[in-house]
This record gives sequence, C-alpha cells and structure tokens, in this order.
Amino acid sequence: MAFLNSNYLKLKAGYLFPEINRRVKAYTDSNPDGAARLIRCGIGDVTEPLPAAVREAMHKAVDELGERTSFRGYGPEQGYEFLRQAIAGQDYRARGMDIADDEIFVSDGSKCDCGNILDIFGANNRIGVMDPVYPVYVDTNVMAGHTGEADESGLYSGLVYLPCDADNGFVPAIPSEKVDLIYLCYPNNPTGATATRAQLTAWVEYALANDAVILFDAAYEAYIRDPEIPHSIYEIPGARRCAIEFRSFSKNGGFTGVRCAFTVVPKDLKCQNASGEKMPLHPLWNRRFSTKFNGVGYVTQRAAEALYSPAGKSQIAELIEHYMGNAAILRGAAEKCGLTAFGGTNAPYIWVRAPKHLTSWAVFDKLLSEANVVVTPGSGFGPAGEGYFRISAFNSRANVVEVARRLAAIDWTR
Amino acid sequence: MAFLNSNYLKLKAGYLFPEINRRVKAYTDSNPDGAARLIRCGIGDVTEPLPAAVREAMHKAVDELGERTSFRGYGPEQGYEFLRQAIAGQDYRARGMDIADDEIFVSDGSKCDCGNILDIFGANNRIGVMDPVYPVYVDTNVMAGHTGEADESGLYSGLVYLPCDADNGFVPAIPSEKVDLIYLCYPNNPTGATATRAQLTAWVEYALANDAVILFDAAYEAYIRDPEIPHSIYEIPGARRCAIEFRSFSKNGGFTGVRCAFTVVPKDLKCQNASGEKMPLHPLWNRRFSTKFNGVGYVTQRAAEALYSPAGKSQIAELIEHYMGNAAILRGAAEKCGLTAFGGTNAPYIWVRAPKHLTSWAVFDKLLSEANVVVTPGSGFGPAGEGYFRISAFNSRANVVEVARRLAAIDWTR
Repeated sequence: MAFLNSNYLKLKAGYLFPEINRRVKAYTDSNPDGAARLIRCGIGDVTEPLPAAVREAMHKAVDELGERTSFRGYGPEQGYEFLRQAIAGQDYRARGMDIADDEIFVSDGSKCDCGNILDIFGANNRIGVMDPVYPVYVDTNVMAGHTGEADESGLYSGLVYLPCDADNGFVPAIPSEKVDLIYLCYPNNPTGATATRAQLTAWVEYALANDAVILFDAAYEAYIRDPEIPHSIYEIPGARRCAIEFRSFSKNGGFTGVRCAFTVVPKDLKCQNASGEKMPLHPLWNRRFSTKFNGVGYVTQRAAEALYSPAGKSQIAELIEHYMGNAAILRGAAEKCGLTAFGGTNAPYIWVRAPKHLTSWAVFDKLLSEANVVVTPGSGFGPAGEGYFRISAFNSRANVVEVARRLAAIDWTR
Repeated sequence: MAFLNSNYLKLKAGYLFPEINRRVKAYTDSNPDGAARLIRCGIGDVTEPLPAAVREAMHKAVDELGERTSFRGYGPEQGYEFLRQAIAGQDYRARGMDIADDEIFVSDGSKCDCGNILDIFGANNRIGVMDPVYPVYVDTNVMAGHTGEADESGLYSGLVYLPCDADNGFVPAIPSEKVDLIYLCYPNNPTGATATRAQLTAWVEYALANDAVILFDAAYEAYIRDPEIPHSIYEIPGARRCAIEFRSFSKNGGFTGVRCAFTVVPKDLKCQNASGEKMPLHPLWNRRFSTKFNGVGYVTQRAAEALYSPAGKSQIAELIEHYMGNAAILRGAAEKCGLTAFGGTNAPYIWVRAPKHLTSWAVFDKLLSEANVVVTPGSGFGPAGEGYFRISAFNSRANVVEVARRLAAIDWTR
C-alpha cells in the first residue's frame, strides 16, 4: 500500500498569506464599503507595469518562435549562455566578484530554488534559520523531514532558530551551537534590515571554520542605496567556498508574473559525502537541473536579458526609485504616528513595532477594519516577529499617500 | 560539517542525451562534411514554428503586463482559473471524465512534475518502472534515496523493473510482486507503443486491489489516432481513486521552449500516512505547489489557453498531422530496409530492432558515421532497450525524406 510523505502532516495549517486572504475575505464580504476602500500593503508583489525594454524583448522572442529558422525548442536546462553571461558578467565580474557563467543556474523563481536546494543536501544537517523568517525556508525543511513537530508558538523541533530583533539590528548573533546550513536573507524579508560587510564577514568566517554552508537570499539587493552595504555574499572573501546565493528578477524587473530567477553555486563549494569525503556541490545541482527541470522558457530568458541592457537598467532604476519613494512615505507615516519603524531605507519593507497593547494579528485586524489597509502580521514570520507588522512599499504612489493619511487618522491608543 | 545528498553519487555518469551529444560532437569535430549533412532524429524536441494562435495570445499578454490596470504579478501557484477550466473542461469533462478545475495543477513541465511528485510520497514505497523507460522516472528515485546502487547493466537495486518487449507489445505484465507506485507512459516514450483499454483496466484493477498509485504519463496523447485507445487513465473506471496523470503542451502545441504542462491529482486519491491511516494526496500536492513553486508566468498561461481556442486546436491538428506524416515515412523506410519497426502509428517515435549483429550503441555509431543521422540508442532507456534504436519524427518533411533515403542506402548486413 502506497505511503504519503508524513512530514507534510507536521506543517502548520495556514501558510501565512492564505490566512491573511481568509481574514480579508471575511471582512470585505460583510463590509462592502470597506471592501471598496481596501488597499493591500501585505504581500510583497510588485504593482507597476513591466519595463518597456522587457516587453520589446518578449515580443521579438515570440516572433522568433514563429519562424522555423529561428524557432527554439528545448534550451540548456541551466539557462541560455546569453543570459548566464549577462548575469555573471554584470552582476558579479563587473563588481569584482569571480563568478563564472556556468556557476549561474537560471530558474523560474527564487521560491523554487530556495526549496529545491535541499535536494542536494543530506538529511542529517543541522539547519539554522533566522526568526522572523521567510516561511519557505522552514516549511521546505519540514517537508523534507529535517524537523520534528511544531510547538504552540510555531517553532519546529530540530531547527536552530536565530532570533532577530531591534537589539541586534535584526542580524542574528553567531550561534553558540554548530549549524551546517544557515539561511541568511539580506536585505531582509520581512524586517527590511541589511547586514554590514563586517557582519557578513563574521558569518563567512563561521561557515569556513565549521564547514557550514550559507544559503544567501539576495532577492532584494536592488533596493540597497547605502554604498557600504554588500549586494552579494561573494563580496566577502572566502564566500566562494561556503555560500550559495539566490537572486530574482521578481523585485527588480517586476517579474513576479513573468517568473525568472537564478542561483549561484560556485565550483569551490564542497560538502562531505556519507564517507566524510569532501566533494563539490556544483555537479549535484547541475545534475538536479538536468534531471528535474527543463529550463526557463526562451521568451522569458530574453525578457531577463533585456534587464541588462542600458534601457533595461534605467527602467529598473525608475522602478526602484518609485518603490523606495513609497517606502520613505510609509516609514515616515508610521513614525509620525509615534510608532518605531525599521527598514524601508535599503529594502521595500517597513517593519513597524505595534503599540504594546496590540499583538501582531490584533494590529492586522485593527488596520483592516479601521483603515481598510492590509499589512502582514509579524508573528506570521515566526515568534520573534510577534509585536511587529510589515508594510510593503509595492504600490502606486496614490495608494501609498492614502495609506499614510489613513495611518495618521487611527487612534493608536486603543 | 555540511553533508551533501550521497544518493546523487549513485547516479550513472551520463544522462542519455549528454552522452549522445558527446559522441555527435566528437564525430562532427573531426568530420566537417558529415557535420554539414547531420540530421538529428534523436531527442524528442519539436521543430516546427509555434502556432499563430499561441503567438497572438502571447503578444496580447505581454501588452497587458505593460499597462498598470492590466498588470499581473503573482498568480495562483496552481494556475489561473482560465487555464485550469479550459483543461478540465475540454480535455476531461467534454470527454466524459469527471475532473474538477481544482484537480488541475499547471506547471512549467512534465519533467519537473514527474520528478517533483516524489516529494509527496513516503520513502518506503516499492517503485515499479517499465524497462525501457524515460530515464527521469528512475533517476529521480535514485536521487530521492529510493534505490541502492546500479549494477553493470544499469539496473538499480530496490526498483522493480517491468520488462517491455515485442512479445508483450511493450505493455508490461502485471507484476507478481507487489509495487506501491507504478510509472506507466502511454503513448510510450521510447517505444511508441500504446496501451489498450483492457490493458489499462487491468492496471487500474491491480492498483485498486493493492492500494497502489499509478503515475500515468500521457505527454504524447495528442498523437493517438486509433479511436479505441484511451487518451487518459481517467477513461478507466476507478482511476480517480488510484492514478495521477501528467500532461504536457510540449509535444502538442510545440511548447518545448515555452514551458507549460499540468498534472491531475483527483481528490479521491488516498495513500496511507505513517500510522496506516488513509488520507487524500490532493492537499499535499497543493501544499507543495504553494510552498515550493510560484506558478507559471502569465504570458505562458495565456499561450497554453490559446491551444484550446478553435484556431489553436486546428493548428495543433496541423502540427500532429505533420509529425505523424513524418512518422509514417520513417517507419516505412525502416521496414524497407528489412528492419522490424514498432510505434509511429499513434506516437511520434519509431522503435526499430537493430540487425542482430549490432548493439544499440553500435547502430547509433553506424548511423552517425555512415548516414550522418542521429538516433537514440535503445539501451540508453534501460537494459530491455538493448538491440533497439529510436527514431524521432520531430523534424521537417525535407529532412525526414532525406533520412529515409539515407537509411535505404545503408548496408545493413555489416
């Protein structure tokens, strides 16, 4: 008789965003006026049109597929050379990082990559995650059987949680117990925090000293404005021997509905096999791509390539400028309400401390009913997120101005 | 110290197609004349332009993403309702099968789905695969740790191989030992065989009697011309309780470079958890999609939807007509050489028995050097494929006519 994967049964019922959708629906179903006024600053989904350079490239690629001589079927699973070269050349080598074209693996999304990466690791690694954290890191480890059950606060046994709060600037301290895989995300989702060169250097040194691997999620690097803050883990010496980096076109080029991302797996990165022998991970990830993936569509890869053209880069810059302008307005609005706010200066998220008498979900419900604004409750990202909420800067300027107005009108003492 | 997944180290070095590419490159590098004449009938990749209805839909969708009011970011991970409804309605309900829209999961490829499906099954299932077989079924089980090492013939311990040959019409006999998961692929890759209603009924009855799950790969269903042959496992009563079906737009709409496919997971399908309790698989697959995938791009889903329009259906029919015309020419050519050929009447593959003195790789090398034609050696699909080679009908008519001419010119006695 066939068995299912019982690890799935350990997962907490609601992934965060479905629960938000449920509460929003319950409210709007019974409040048509509120429904009409609703503004969503919850999920981190872009709102502005796809850049013109990207659309032009897509139109051209669609036409190419319509001619027998320029038709393309299966491409290389790891991505077309034209795109791998643009990425490695412009995002890395032009910035002084030694990353080869064939260390770039083009995929259909960072969420997929962050989950699929576990395929190439053994089942007996000790996993470190930040708290609060992007739920995908935790849930994919649960599904892979790397944890026990969750406790009442939502923490799974078997994971090492690295608490992040205002005291440590939302960058976790180096753990006292050893971990083998460490998920780091900077600029951070949900807190909007960044890590300094010194902090990342400490993590790389820890990983090298302990033969650990850093899984570095840099999906929001385009939002960094401070020239001192690293955009990539590979800006830190030694990171080629201990880090995998995830990047996405979702938040810079507005590709959340187009689907393209990439992962960097340096050939110097090694792990031990069951006999304790050190072997490179690159061939394993390459094999996973060849066997369980068939590459990103040609039109989509041409779309991503267009982001590296002069026009594409300037259109990305305009998008970032727009969203970061939103972030400044929203952070300012929260502070004018007397709330303590973090992030929003090098990231599109503002992480706001709720008034002491309100839990994360209470402030979510209050903003939904009193301001008809959807935010994300901090506790949805982990117990250390309790008492915070996240405002996303992905919106139109008019909506952001209106959200700022509504935040100011709220009685925060209740 | 971090561990890698040592199961990957059990994989045989060459996935079939990279080894073919290596031999082709070695030959063409030293034979420029042969390189110029080379015709590829190896990999099952389509060659004809993307249908006009699809391109129109893609252009329109790209333009929609360029306007703020019609921009789409993240869609539902499982696919847009417009596409799930078209699939369930036209491929299933219109043909008398009871499949709901939300039992359709839209993905970026059948290869991905066939590999990823193992995520939701336990590690302790007994796996049955046909021999010869699409290598992805076997390799993904090796990677997931469901097998031991391979023997010299390439068979992995721990898998139950179900040999298929001319004697059983390339449809395996019901196994004497029990299996929990069974991969069936019809029309078959590589043999081009189909399974009759009676044969599929026997498999469904076996699965129901043994609480086994059939993983039914129907990627080539569009090539079926015989009205008696089922296109879907759900044409068999009871299959909703024991089967998952994989379908693809790669081979009907020519989407190998566009990337769209789908999987059907009926809500009636149950497996046991670690406590032996039966539970539905649908919520697990749904959770996998929500957590490890972010949906197929909007433009691509509109492209797939266009295949269900009257224009799209007629353009698919033209493509199938073209490739099946090729298949008839190629099968006829093989038979004129005195070779025994199978398939090619309800599938785009012709499975040819090599002359007795030639192994699969020997006939591959002979055709490469003497005819400058690339085929696929049968043994690459498993030991039971030894002594056969596969000719793909995916090509231009001119190339196929030329291949037929070259086959006729070969001295098959050597």
